[in-house]
Amino acid sequence: MNKDIKLWQKEIENEIDKLNWEIEPKNLYAPIEYTLALGGKRIRPICLLLANHIFSGDHSKAINLALAIEVFHNFTLLHDDIMDKADMRRGKPTVHIKWNENTSILSGDGMLIKAYQLLAEYKGENFREILDLFSQTALEVCEGQQYDMEFENRSDVKEEEYIEMIRLKTAVLLAASLKIGALSGGATATEAQALYDFGINIGLAFQLKDDLLDVYGDEATFGKNIGGDICCNKKTYLLINALNGVEGAEKEKLNSWIAKERFDRAEKVEAVTNIYNQLNLKEKTEKVMNDYYQKAIKSLDNIQNDSFALKVLYDLAGSLMQRES
Amino acid sequence: MNKDIKLWQKEIENEIDKLNWEIEPKNLYAPIEYTLALGGKRIRPICLLLANHIFSGDHSKAINLALAIEVFHNFTLLHDDIMDKADMRRGKPTVHIKWNENTSILSGDGMLIKAYQLLAEYKGENFREILDLFSQTALEVCEGQQYDMEFENRSDVKEEEYIEMIRLKTAVLLAASLKIGALSGGATATEAQALYDFGINIGLAFQLKDDLLDVYGDEATFGKNIGGDICCNKKTYLLINALNGVEGAEKEKLNSWIAKERFDRAEKVEAVTNIYNQLNLKEKTEKVMNDYYQKAIKSLDNIQNDSFALKVLYDLAGSLMQRES
Repeated sequence: MNKDIKLWQKEIENEIDKLNWEIEPKNLYAPIEYTLALGGKRIRPICLLLANHIFSGDHSKAINLALAIEVFHNFTLLHDDIMDKADMRRGKPTVHIKWNENTSILSGDGMLIKAYQLLAEYKGENFREILDLFSQTALEVCEGQQYDMEFENRSDVKEEEYIEMIRLKTAVLLAASLKIGALSGGATATEAQALYDFGINIGLAFQLKDDLLDVYGDEATFGKNIGGDICCNKKTYLLINALNGVEGAEKEKLNSWIAKERFDRAEKVEAVTNIYNQLNLKEKTEKVMNDYYQKAIKSLDNIQNDSFALKVLYDLAGSLMQRES
Repeated sequence: MNKDIKLWQKEIENEIDKLNWEIEPKNLYAPIEYTLALGGKRIRPICLLLANHIFSGDHSKAINLALAIEVFHNFTLLHDDIMDKADMRRGKPTVHIKWNENTSILSGDGMLIKAYQLLAEYKGENFREILDLFSQTALEVCEGQQYDMEFENRSDVKEEEYIEMIRLKTAVLLAASLKIGALSGGATATEAQALYDFGINIGLAFQLKDDLLDVYGDEATFGKNIGGDICCNKKTYLLINALNGVEGAEKEKLNSWIAKERFDRAEKVEAVTNIYNQLNLKEKTEKVMNDYYQKAIKSLDNIQNDSFALKVLYDLAGSLMQRES
């Protein structure tokens, strides 16, 4: 990330720090504070502020909208971590491990409500349009999570089903962040839609990059072990394509690795990666990812504006594609 | 319940039936449909419509607000049932039993978002006031649930702590339903507040009645076994008062029943009920309940209006106190 993006990120961190969770009952609010302090790239609120700044030149009125999106996003992580039985997030124990599952459910519920409260701090005349988009997006994210869970028990997921799932689970929230930023900054409907389309495509590319990094990332910079998705048979773009493309003896091999309950981690990662390599899935995934990236840039090119924030948004899109973690 | 109240209830049922959940992904929306079809008294949406009708004379514009409240209430039941590990609700398996816990978490999240969407169907100018009250109330309900869970591990809960807990967990939602109904019907701020105060006090009385019915209800009309709260050591108004009031040998007896992991159900219910009886807790609870009921009626008397709906609201309050289930 370049230093301009880091400045926006820093601003988001400062604003998150200002939220007051030192209220009663402690065990409802402390897990929310803990979750928000775990960090992350803060891409969604940064995008919202940038989109706002492009049109308004002063994004101060959009801060609470940005916080609403980040609180909502972290609510989804909190509940997803229960559903995925994930013990760690960003190197720290998840809430249902550090506290317990009930706390995790209830604090998550509280975060979702708090996200709406932050959203309602926005005083602009187009509040209802923003609220409707937020709710629709929130429901779509739930739909995406439902499909994701269902895919774990299926071996016949089609490529287009996978793309639709990541559109719902990942892309729509990024797209909504950008559109809400634009709307709150006074963009026209066409401009707001261009940013939404940019968000969908960059979101899809972002998730494909995630899928790639798990297999082909550099362990030192990735920050976690390579092959995590392979080990737990996570239905990524690569695995779905492998399941749909592999034949004969290789197909049996892949299925046997998926079925194995006890295995040597490194051995499984190497074997499955070899199958991906034989099918040229790295190249295929990169191509599809780059196509979405190009589509995203094309949408962004529709914004005719000499704002510095627009330049930062181009940089951010580029850095998401080149990231190593 | 008299026939006027039943007509309002029937209208709510019809409106709930009209909601369309036959959409994809099925496993996200079918549990929502199932939960809403389990029934219940629909007291909150009835109160909202009545409060609206008192001032507007035509409650058609408040239907979606009433549905929002009922969907929110059922969301809290869905998540509470996971937290309480409850297998049955209204004679049917809970969602986390019929489907699984992940479905229950995610469908609940979807319901909370859907509640906001229904709320946002309201087109009145005072929408923001209604939205803010709804969010604040929703957060208070979470706080109430958190206190309720914490109380299960404490034996030193004070009476006023218990009252504050049920205010948050039960009363504020009833109060908000009434106030939202009033606001959407064009009530003045004073009138809306009078209905809110009525709701708080009738809500507290309602919960105390619940606590009483579990011990002193008539099994045939109660619809479930008497003593359910006693068996699982649920911190009701009666148990909290018993723990705070009992002394000497009786204290040891009560504590030993609470500590027992294996016991004869009927024997425990009888023994604990006897302790309640010795402390005159039936009479004490009834007195406190009636005091709240009187306060509630006093608030309602502030509404000067000859609407038939106001009469029905008085009847509803009375029937909640006299109910046997």
